[in-house]
Amino acid sequence: MEYLTGENKKETVEIGDLLSTEKLGQIIKMRGAIHTIRDMGDIAFVILRKREGLVQCVFEKGKTNYDFKELKEAACIQIQGEVHEEERAPHGIEIRLHEIEILSEPAAAMPLSINKWKMNTSLEAKLNNRSISLRNIRERAKFKIQEGIVKGFRDFLYGQGFTEIHTPKIGAKGAEGGANIFKLEYFHKPAILEQSPQLYKQMMVGVFDRVFETGPVFRAEKHNTKRHLNEYTSLDFEMGYIDSFEDIMAMETGFLQYTMALLKREYANELNILKVTLPKVDKIPQVRFDVAKELVSKKYDRKIRNPYDLEPEEEVLIGQYFKEEEDADFVFVTHYPSKKRPFYAMDDPADTKFTVSFDLLFHGMEITTGGQRIHDYNMLVEKIAARGMTEEGLEQYLDTFKAGMPPHGGLGLGLERLTMKLVGEDNVRETTLFPRDLGRLTP
Amino acid sequence: MEYLTGENKKETVEIGDLLSTEKLGQIIKMRGAIHTIRDMGDIAFVILRKREGLVQCVFEKGKTNYDFKELKEAACIQIQGEVHEEERAPHGIEIRLHEIEILSEPAAAMPLSINKWKMNTSLEAKLNNRSISLRNIRERAKFKIQEGIVKGFRDFLYGQGFTEIHTPKIGAKGAEGGANIFKLEYFHKPAILEQSPQLYKQMMVGVFDRVFETGPVFRAEKHNTKRHLNEYTSLDFEMGYIDSFEDIMAMETGFLQYTMALLKREYANELNILKVTLPKVDKIPQVRFDVAKELVSKKYDRKIRNPYDLEPEEEVLIGQYFKEEEDADFVFVTHYPSKKRPFYAMDDPADTKFTVSFDLLFHGMEITTGGQRIHDYNMLVEKIAARGMTEEGLEQYLDTFKAGMPPHGGLGLGLERLTMKLVGEDNVRETTLFPRDLGRLTP
Repeated sequence: MEYLTGENKKETVEIGDLLSTEKLGQIIKMRGAIHTIRDMGDIAFVILRKREGLVQCVFEKGKTNYDFKELKEAACIQIQGEVHEEERAPHGIEIRLHEIEILSEPAAAMPLSINKWKMNTSLEAKLNNRSISLRNIRERAKFKIQEGIVKGFRDFLYGQGFTEIHTPKIGAKGAEGGANIFKLEYFHKPAILEQSPQLYKQMMVGVFDRVFETGPVFRAEKHNTKRHLNEYTSLDFEMGYIDSFEDIMAMETGFLQYTMALLKREYANELNILKVTLPKVDKIPQVRFDVAKELVSKKYDRKIRNPYDLEPEEEVLIGQYFKEEEDADFVFVTHYPSKKRPFYAMDDPADTKFTVSFDLLFHGMEITTGGQRIHDYNMLVEKIAARGMTEEGLEQYLDTFKAGMPPHGGLGLGLERLTMKLVGEDNVRETTLFPRDLGRLTP
Repeated sequence: MEYLTGENKKETVEIGDLLSTEKLGQIIKMRGAIHTIRDMGDIAFVILRKREGLVQCVFEKGKTNYDFKELKEAACIQIQGEVHEEERAPHGIEIRLHEIEILSEPAAAMPLSINKWKMNTSLEAKLNNRSISLRNIRERAKFKIQEGIVKGFRDFLYGQGFTEIHTPKIGAKGAEGGANIFKLEYFHKPAILEQSPQLYKQMMVGVFDRVFETGPVFRAEKHNTKRHLNEYTSLDFEMGYIDSFEDIMAMETGFLQYTMALLKREYANELNILKVTLPKVDKIPQVRFDVAKELVSKKYDRKIRNPYDLEPEEEVLIGQYFKEEEDADFVFVTHYPSKKRPFYAMDDPADTKFTVSFDLLFHGMEITTGGQRIHDYNMLVEKIAARGMTEEGLEQYLDTFKAGMPPHGGLGLGLERLTMKLVGEDNVRETTLFPRDLGRLTP
């Protein structure tokens, strides 16, 4: 009988192995893809692409035991060679090649030049060839940063006593009204794709006190802008036993602090590749919605057209205002008007035209919406009635409140938008692995 | 200007705080839901439910500053009281109540008795009242274990150099053929819900070498069994530069070892609540598909009806066989017939009727399917043609291989099934937060 007893240790090494041990002068084996070949005459530089970065290998013609003419960019190879110090090479090392073994070869030339440092390619072309364009070191680095954000979100919330949940994406009715929802047929029943885990995470606050989810959400919005996607990854949490909605903003601030520290520690390489300066998160100003409108109206001499809504241009100006006045990268805008918030939002007892809710702006763009929710069954039923909504499809949600629920609140954060702002891109598709928008359903 | 500077520290304590510090004899404040009230005459036990477990509070009539008649089960309260040792109480402590403050009250009686140790309630009733039934301590514990499995999966794979990815769930065409796929309209274009991240994770192996994803998958299968769901959480990974498909099985074994150790360390409380004995994962036997069929046919005197397929009953017998012969909880069944595997599966060079693939059975039920994939563009195109499939919708997938891909393989693991087998349930709905099946689309 044969057994599996744990992960297979390999004799091939990774970049980390080269750096952490006394490998200079040693002969090692390594695997990777040929990122680029630079033929210098007697020698050639064969740059290997590995998950941790690039490795400079030196092909010495006549010495390296392989026919140079046979070597192709984009081939996957195993090499054997000697490790040398070389301060001009990535990681300060190069490998002088003894042997090369081909693991697999491309069937055609690359459709894009991925081995340039900055790809001189349109966004459309990059997205049309997504699995190729991401082989570029800078393109790839954005998604390592994205990984770090999600890791930071989860690790921070685990530490704060949150439980991770997985809620269904196919449902019977939308949480926040009928528009902008993808519909499908589910075994001859009408169904929808959830535009948010909102109702589910609230229901789970009664079970776990604090919950979070990282998963896809679906919005059939017909926006064709640089910041809208029709499917995106939402980082959601919901927490019970709060004193006020400030507890939610405080928790988000804690998450941002934790995550920026994590990125600095574990993703320094990618931050450096993308020349990212991490934003300031030690203290984040908060300002009321109506006050923010006044401030930018005065400072930038801009008329307030609609006192109950924030235009994208106003968001940008609020970002600019707080950067100029407070050197702040983030700002919490609070107390949004009640009629612009969903039925479950808690109205401000001091003035029920407003809610105890907030958006978080990052350099003038909304990346989070959150706030306190209604926890009292009767208040919830009254608000649903006052809005002329039906309770149909909300039965089990409402039953949850009937059976008692703690004061609670939470937020949803758009992962791709946060990544975009963090790495300094201006189109959310740049930081979405495979974007879905009005025109794009492939790859 | 007001600022947020990090998560708010509370003066109320959690169970962990009570145990880890010198709290005996101290007066503390705590928040939670009233799980149950047991009136003993002069005193009453008020059991608080918190995210970490239950806390016994003692209401001393005449001494506790609250009207006992007003106290309702399922209310959310804040209490103040003195911490005492009490070995018969959970965690060996009880709190003698001085003050009670009501945070919120239920609007009706509970539809289910959630405060019994084992709920005497049908699965249907539990699922119809999911947000209530999960308030039961044992029901809730299953999903903490589930959290631990996902945490183990991610943490182990991070440590092995994998990158987490988020692939789209709305797509243009199904990966593995046209049947069993949910269809929807996407801005007047036909679209589908992805039944697996398979093609995307393969495409990303060319970028990150090793990738994983934890997310929902959708299967429109008309199975109405105890082990099928129409939406479930799939734990997927895909890794490049493998020597053979055994590297994939070895990695999964490593994951299981890591995760069982993590559960033992961090989820001991929940394992204890559910009386779970963790399975043996130090070594996992592997057996060829055809050999496994022979073995159970002989031992259990069962005729082989179809040499190219494994019936559920045969899976059960294989599980039984290896439990009896090897004391094994898991077994890898390898070399599945080629015609039962998808087009991207790598055929065994030694006999192309079979594939270098595997299923992992846990107590006789398939929880994972995996194997080596084809990495050569021409081989892939030939296999697609030989199956009479079209390349339509696979253009970008195939372009990825045209541009070179390392030898690779991976697997998909059904989270709810693994949880079910681990906690000893026999219906996968027991370990699904909000199941979606042929008949169930709510809550």
